[in-house]
Amino acid sequence: MSVNQREIGRRKLLGEIRRQQRVPRIDLSELTGISRATVTTITAELLREGLIEEVSSDLGEKDSKRGRPKVDLKIRGAARLIAGAKISHKTISLVLLDFEGTQLAAHEAELEEAVMPTEDMTVVLADLLEVLARKMGLSRADIAGFGLGIAGIVDAPRGFVHWSPSLDSRNVMLGDILGRGLGIPVFIDNDANLVAMAEKSFGLGVGHNDFIVVTIESGVGMGIVINNEIYRGTRGCGAEFGHTKVQLEGALCRCGQRGCLEAYAADYALTREAMMASGEAAEREVEDILRAAKEGDEMAASIVSRAGRMFAMGLANIVNIFDPELIILAGEQMQSSHLYAEEVIEGMRKLIVQVDKAPPEVVVHKWGNLMWARGAAAYALEKVSENALLEMAENVA
Amino acid sequence: MSVNQREIGRRKLLGEIRRQQRVPRIDLSELTGISRATVTTITAELLREGLIEEVSSDLGEKDSKRGRPKVDLKIRGAARLIAGAKISHKTISLVLLDFEGTQLAAHEAELEEAVMPTEDMTVVLADLLEVLARKMGLSRADIAGFGLGIAGIVDAPRGFVHWSPSLDSRNVMLGDILGRGLGIPVFIDNDANLVAMAEKSFGLGVGHNDFIVVTIESGVGMGIVINNEIYRGTRGCGAEFGHTKVQLEGALCRCGQRGCLEAYAADYALTREAMMASGEAAEREVEDILRAAKEGDEMAASIVSRAGRMFAMGLANIVNIFDPELIILAGEQMQSSHLYAEEVIEGMRKLIVQVDKAPPEVVVHKWGNLMWARGAAAYALEKVSENALLEMAENVA
Repeated sequence: MSVNQREIGRRKLLGEIRRQQRVPRIDLSELTGISRATVTTITAELLREGLIEEVSSDLGEKDSKRGRPKVDLKIRGAARLIAGAKISHKTISLVLLDFEGTQLAAHEAELEEAVMPTEDMTVVLADLLEVLARKMGLSRADIAGFGLGIAGIVDAPRGFVHWSPSLDSRNVMLGDILGRGLGIPVFIDNDANLVAMAEKSFGLGVGHNDFIVVTIESGVGMGIVINNEIYRGTRGCGAEFGHTKVQLEGALCRCGQRGCLEAYAADYALTREAMMASGEAAEREVEDILRAAKEGDEMAASIVSRAGRMFAMGLANIVNIFDPELIILAGEQMQSSHLYAEEVIEGMRKLIVQVDKAPPEVVVHKWGNLMWARGAAAYALEKVSENALLEMAENVA
Repeated sequence: MSVNQREIGRRKLLGEIRRQQRVPRIDLSELTGISRATVTTITAELLREGLIEEVSSDLGEKDSKRGRPKVDLKIRGAARLIAGAKISHKTISLVLLDFEGTQLAAHEAELEEAVMPTEDMTVVLADLLEVLARKMGLSRADIAGFGLGIAGIVDAPRGFVHWSPSLDSRNVMLGDILGRGLGIPVFIDNDANLVAMAEKSFGLGVGHNDFIVVTIESGVGMGIVINNEIYRGTRGCGAEFGHTKVQLEGALCRCGQRGCLEAYAADYALTREAMMASGEAAEREVEDILRAAKEGDEMAASIVSRAGRMFAMGLANIVNIFDPELIILAGEQMQSSHLYAEEVIEGMRKLIVQVDKAPPEVVVHKWGNLMWARGAAAYALEKVSENALLEMAENVA
């Protein structure tokens, strides 16, 4: 068996044990297609490295042949400590997970600045990770990996940020910079991808191999899961759903271009239209506009209706391209409910290619900031697992 | 080694030998990560089954240890005979390949009907496959697999056609019906996917794992290659680029919906606009409109320009979603050159998310009908290889 094969085997087995949560050693060969002898060798290595552990089987049965209690294998929670965080406009949410993915602690804080130089971000994160770890009587140095989700355009494999509303400069090797500053491995991704990661790991995407997550916060984001992996594109500029164009030379977008979906469906688009329509200089809150629309204000209703129809059109384009089995509309803001409305989803269904087969399922998942942070931690967990296996390969070699 | 693993090993090795064209047995372990002992066992099986063969190395060297001539392994061309065809409006193109993928014969014919019942299609194909095989002194029964590309919405893994302009009914299990009628395995796919297959197998996509192919014939199609595989979506309705919407409640499309890209960029859209603009009942040929636009006719220029700008917008949406490394614009019609024009590509570049990194490469690949048929044959070749390995597994078991 080549080194390559052994490494693939380790990855497969650790992944399968994680998926199964608890699994008798004897089932792993069947589940993975790896021979029993190899399963025995590799699980012994994983036990020795402390990445997995034996626990007595739930049934408490005894092994009939050997007369000793039956055991299951599981991920060893204490093996690694993982942190995840999500930076929103002026808030940050953090979670601490064990290696099993169990949440140990959480923390939320206000940020003094919405836009930061990397030095300030390092200082803020160092403090907050220390606060988080202390909640478990540990310190920042005990954290094996930290996943960070930020808005913007992120080349995740390189930890490179093309642009982010949270950073004061473009083209930043943020992963490396924070990694050095914090003294722990840091994994960066776009916030929408991390929502997709959360849905895939412990959300509504569990059990689905191909699905799309559309996130609605102040902007419109997307995460694409193909073959159980996040699809990120070549330059880290994929899944920019909010900047797909829904109108040739249309409304001006925050990005400087015209006709982007966001320029019709995002919060600022609604408040801008309401301001222009009323001729008032004061900005109206989105909640006000939505309430007015419900109460029969025609102008407000027209603004909200167009946002919905544009969103339906953008969503239909995604279905016409990906034909996914599932679309998850994820967001924490109740105020975006007009975009989740049944008439919007029905509008999307009318704009997709019509075949005699049910259109993709659309589900709405409203959740809090902590779930985004958990997605970031899930990404870090995946990376830390990979790194643990690479270290192990070096130890063995 | 489990059965599962052995099968994966066979698939990997056959695929690697195909990719390498000629390869010394000793290199295969390094290339695939499969142990030398297993490579020896599996290649012996593949040789016994006649799927591969030994040829003397190009260098004519002798193995220094054993003193016998060095040999390479290669796919055995004579192992299986493969056919591929593409049905266009009223023409059909066919090619015959050997198991190495070498083209042995080709044939083109006019069809009497553009829209057929499956019975007629079976009769026509039976005749033409016989004609094709006779060119090599063989008969239709010698063909191990037949790939067929047709326009429409096709669920390829099931061989199911939701709808095709070439068929007189919807929801047809075309693969099974033709398979029974022709007495050979038939593999159906959307024509755009088969162009993607051709580009991936022997076109401009060789060496690229992720790319998009946009096809321009009378309609606008797309093939998506992710991780070296054609991405087909859940219901076989993915990659419907021509029916992504570029205008809310816009121009009427042939599909019955409004605002589809095709309703602005396809041939019929140009002729329709020209007809409406001139008030003449006679349809103008697309070539006429393009010529008039070039010669300074303002109305023609406006029609052509909008088609280009809408096409640029649709293309930009694809880039904003996939961030591919490469986009291949493929088509056989010189008359679509206005959509390939540099100003259209430049228009797309202006509508994508701007980062300090080069936009995806865009290449134009003009080719004939035979290349589409070769794509269909490449798809059949892939399927026949899989089936040959499955049969082999049964023989061994």
